[in-house]
Amino acid sequence: MTPAPANSVETPLLDAIHAPADVRALPVEALPRLAAEIRTRMVATVSKTGGHIAPSLGVIELTLALCRVFDFPADKVVWDVGHQAYAWKMLTGRNARMETLRRFGGLRGFPFPGESPYDATVGGHAGVALATALGLAAARDARGGAGHIIAVVGDASLTNGISLEALNAVRHTTERLILVINDNGMSISRNVGALARLFARRLTGLRYNRIRAAAEAAGHRLRLFRLKYAYRNIKTALKGLLLRQRAAIFEDLGLRYIGPIDGHDIPALCDALRAAAEGHVPVALHIATVKGKGYPPAERNPAKWHGVGPWATEPAAASPRRPTWSETFGAHLLARARDDARLCAITAAMRAGTGLLPFFRECPARAYDVGICEGYALAFAAGLAAGGRRPVVALYSTFAQRAADNLMHDVCLPNLPVVLCLDRAGVVGPDGPTHHGLYDIAMFRALPNLEIHAPCDRATLTAALDAALLRDGPTVLRYPRGTIPQGPAPRLAGPSPDCPIVLALGPTAFWAEPVARALGLALEPVTAVKPLPPLVRALSGRPVITIEDAAAEGGFGAAVAEIHRGPLLILGWPDRFVPQGTDAELRAACGLDTPGLHRRIAAFLGGLQHG
Amino acid sequence: MTPAPANSVETPLLDAIHAPADVRALPVEALPRLAAEIRTRMVATVSKTGGHIAPSLGVIELTLALCRVFDFPADKVVWDVGHQAYAWKMLTGRNARMETLRRFGGLRGFPFPGESPYDATVGGHAGVALATALGLAAARDARGGAGHIIAVVGDASLTNGISLEALNAVRHTTERLILVINDNGMSISRNVGALARLFARRLTGLRYNRIRAAAEAAGHRLRLFRLKYAYRNIKTALKGLLLRQRAAIFEDLGLRYIGPIDGHDIPALCDALRAAAEGHVPVALHIATVKGKGYPPAERNPAKWHGVGPWATEPAAASPRRPTWSETFGAHLLARARDDARLCAITAAMRAGTGLLPFFRECPARAYDVGICEGYALAFAAGLAAGGRRPVVALYSTFAQRAADNLMHDVCLPNLPVVLCLDRAGVVGPDGPTHHGLYDIAMFRALPNLEIHAPCDRATLTAALDAALLRDGPTVLRYPRGTIPQGPAPRLAGPSPDCPIVLALGPTAFWAEPVARALGLALEPVTAVKPLPPLVRALSGRPVITIEDAAAEGGFGAAVAEIHRGPLLILGWPDRFVPQGTDAELRAACGLDTPGLHRRIAAFLGGLQHG
Repeated sequence: MTPAPANSVETPLLDAIHAPADVRALPVEALPRLAAEIRTRMVATVSKTGGHIAPSLGVIELTLALCRVFDFPADKVVWDVGHQAYAWKMLTGRNARMETLRRFGGLRGFPFPGESPYDATVGGHAGVALATALGLAAARDARGGAGHIIAVVGDASLTNGISLEALNAVRHTTERLILVINDNGMSISRNVGALARLFARRLTGLRYNRIRAAAEAAGHRLRLFRLKYAYRNIKTALKGLLLRQRAAIFEDLGLRYIGPIDGHDIPALCDALRAAAEGHVPVALHIATVKGKGYPPAERNPAKWHGVGPWATEPAAASPRRPTWSETFGAHLLARARDDARLCAITAAMRAGTGLLPFFRECPARAYDVGICEGYALAFAAGLAAGGRRPVVALYSTFAQRAADNLMHDVCLPNLPVVLCLDRAGVVGPDGPTHHGLYDIAMFRALPNLEIHAPCDRATLTAALDAALLRDGPTVLRYPRGTIPQGPAPRLAGPSPDCPIVLALGPTAFWAEPVARALGLALEPVTAVKPLPPLVRALSGRPVITIEDAAAEGGFGAAVAEIHRGPLLILGWPDRFVPQGTDAELRAACGLDTPGLHRRIAAFLGGLQHG
Repeated sequence: MTPAPANSVETPLLDAIHAPADVRALPVEALPRLAAEIRTRMVATVSKTGGHIAPSLGVIELTLALCRVFDFPADKVVWDVGHQAYAWKMLTGRNARMETLRRFGGLRGFPFPGESPYDATVGGHAGVALATALGLAAARDARGGAGHIIAVVGDASLTNGISLEALNAVRHTTERLILVINDNGMSISRNVGALARLFARRLTGLRYNRIRAAAEAAGHRLRLFRLKYAYRNIKTALKGLLLRQRAAIFEDLGLRYIGPIDGHDIPALCDALRAAAEGHVPVALHIATVKGKGYPPAERNPAKWHGVGPWATEPAAASPRRPTWSETFGAHLLARARDDARLCAITAAMRAGTGLLPFFRECPARAYDVGICEGYALAFAAGLAAGGRRPVVALYSTFAQRAADNLMHDVCLPNLPVVLCLDRAGVVGPDGPTHHGLYDIAMFRALPNLEIHAPCDRATLTAALDAALLRDGPTVLRYPRGTIPQGPAPRLAGPSPDCPIVLALGPTAFWAEPVARALGLALEPVTAVKPLPPLVRALSGRPVITIEDAAAEGGFGAAVAEIHRGPLLILGWPDRFVPQGTDAELRAACGLDTPGLHRRIAAFLGGLQHG
């Protein structure tokens, strides 16, 4: 059992901090206690709000060191994947609001410039911090400014293509930039790739430090010059052996390498940051941190504790949890893979989230986790398909935006049988606008050769996957986060064959059903955006209402509008970024809950009678 | 003056080759003559068809060596940016059709699986070859197959994010893959970045080889053991000094490094390829080539000769050439930059193509060519904008697909004033479906905070750019390849205020004008897709015809369909990949030329009368 954190915690030091300057004013001896208070409060808060607890626990000391050394917001820190940023939020005037974290109207789970002057950029998608930090640095250089720009990038984010493009660009873009590599040896699940191996903790920080500590202890005991000298040589050789590769790769790229530094040793971090800030050359400062540091359950299983729901307030599940879309997809794909050796699965650091863990366990030889490299995932899948395999790529909808060009150029143009499964398509709740999957239909619908399906329940998901696996061309499947309806999705005939009809894409049939029933409308669940089902072409002048869990512009409604010449009401998410919140809160805020749908559809029907 | 190549050339060796096996059957002494024949024929052909002459001239010897060593199509070669592939086409059964290169119905300018069993993947966008080759290798490994997979990647493509993601993935994906790095020290214009510096020819192949040649000559003359020994040491030291960095970076990534090899020395290339094929470890084979090799004008100015129009058949321009969209954009941006020091320009290896060369010359300190890194370009621009600069990013529409996620996450979500100028939006002629810019409107239209403009002539382009530079939010401008109309774009009032109206997006007003005039329709040039001009909302039940130089699905027509409830005909490029050809040929093939538009609009109007 997970120990339940205290409901209220005493944090006198933390409570007195309203800006990073307050951290600088503290005596250095107080910092460990402040770190402990932050840790306690973070666990107490996130146990109620849910959130990315493990990453944020790992960088508390780094955040304190940054506040000690730099002058924010004149200096700027860019957090790559801002779910490291809870301590940052607590130290930059937002501690009192931490209970609202990831809640509707509350603090965002990621840095966001509109939320605080201390947040330099949006930090929701991994891999862009170094690129945006370089932009900030170039802007500072152009102004002749003096501020420091720091990018904090996880080791997993560093192998993303845009991170690597940025790493390649550092040296000719600016002379002053600090790249802090937060090396916890993890991505959301585990790291992959040659660079990850270079960073793997076993080969670096901890092992080196342990050997050094042992050698130092020996040196101190013997106090013999010869042995000390020998030890120094051993130390140098060891450091050379273990660090050569890692240092070389950064020095090849024109960055001065400092590290590895113990990421939980505040004085060491401050020294290293000061050293990094002094030179006139870009610096890669490599720190080793422990994901989940200080909270034993998260330290023991950082993958599970990467991002979690609230665990202090939710009652233990009495009834068995109902299966999710992801699990249903993963199980069905695995079942099909048992019969078809050509079938393989690809994801981009989303094994658990996309339901592919069972597939990875049972068929490791044909399961590929490519790390945070969505574009590569699609291009790699194109090669697999061209080589006669049947690749299924599972990504979150929002991250699949990174693969738009590869979907077009590598997959659709040669018409290869690649199946792209978009999990988390639709609003995703507390992660908010960086993670809502609202733009996939609009982005991909114009691509020739592509089919786009949006199943509405268990049966249509498995049927759509089966059909996609048999198709000689590319297919996108989109489905939302959360529990899958066991189905069938509701269908209403309506009072007459020409009565207004609601075309509900995917599981929005469940949203529409009470309203359609109350207003006496027909309701038809639609499970394909491209091609549209023949039904849609047969509606001639009949009034149509479309509903979708996607942006209303350019999506399913637009596809219907292109061919339907009768009255039409398009309902979907509005043309502004949708905030965080529960599905119910967001639907209510955007007129997609039952009262909102009722009101809007009734107004549309009223307009028809008066029109 | 460029020497005019002979109209017909004698190529007896080449004419006898119909498959790579025929190259293997030749005596080794015949290969230089075959290379010369290929070169002659390539220049003679491309002087008539236009095409990517300089890259293809550089890899003739490599192509011959590949044909000697490997067994195609059982083995597979993936050309990164297939405009290196003309010799490949000539040696794989397509020599007789080379005169049709890049012409309507002819050979494609890039490898394409549908064109030949020897073409493994589509090779139009840079940076994906290693990723797709890894997919082919993984598929082969899964089948237990024995074939070789070779990826030929230019040094500039290697710094693209997907190349780097793939490089990071090689070692844990397969034990057998040959990455040939074709190092000509050039991207389309010039290379940028730390990796490019590592590859820079001055530091590597030629310099090393020249020094070695000099040392060898000295050694041979003196024939003294001591000096030979000294020379060997010098050679080793030199090689170590010059190659250490480059080799280290690949060996860090788990690839065996071989090189640099003179890319025009066929026996050396064959030896190196055989060595690479033997091991059970992925190999990076680094070859140094001269872009434009063997054609003096192209060797002298490879950037100019990267891709060219036909030069043997076009008469010398008697009248001054009319300005292009790109030039007009570049000149206007530069004029504005003179008055606004915050303004800066970014491109991704498309300086000349996007009209930014004058800007780069006059304002080098605020002009950024980031190499083939479109995603990085947008994220970097976001940082510049967050730092108070006014960045303008100019990309070809088709390559901007790579930046869709960064446009959404880094630019639109924080509502930053970044201007994204999409050049080559619409069909682009002989480069064909990989390069047509048809999907940008659909991909970007659903993004909140974004405006999308499509100017129709000179005045509306400069006005749209001025407005975008003043706007406190992101703006996309799209405009096509080619000559800019000096304007104004045609506008027709029509015979009555409620007559059918053609809404023509951007310069398609010029397409529509003769048809609208002939059919007695109103014609209105529309220069914005998002937001739509108020006019569109005021059309109530009036019959509307929309025309756009973009995919008909999800584009401007769809935007109009979403709000217009009267009869509507949407005209744009069809839902299939549009082939290569002249604008006139493509418009005729897709019903967008004057007769096609006339026929389709007349049918629509006829349907209204009978409806």
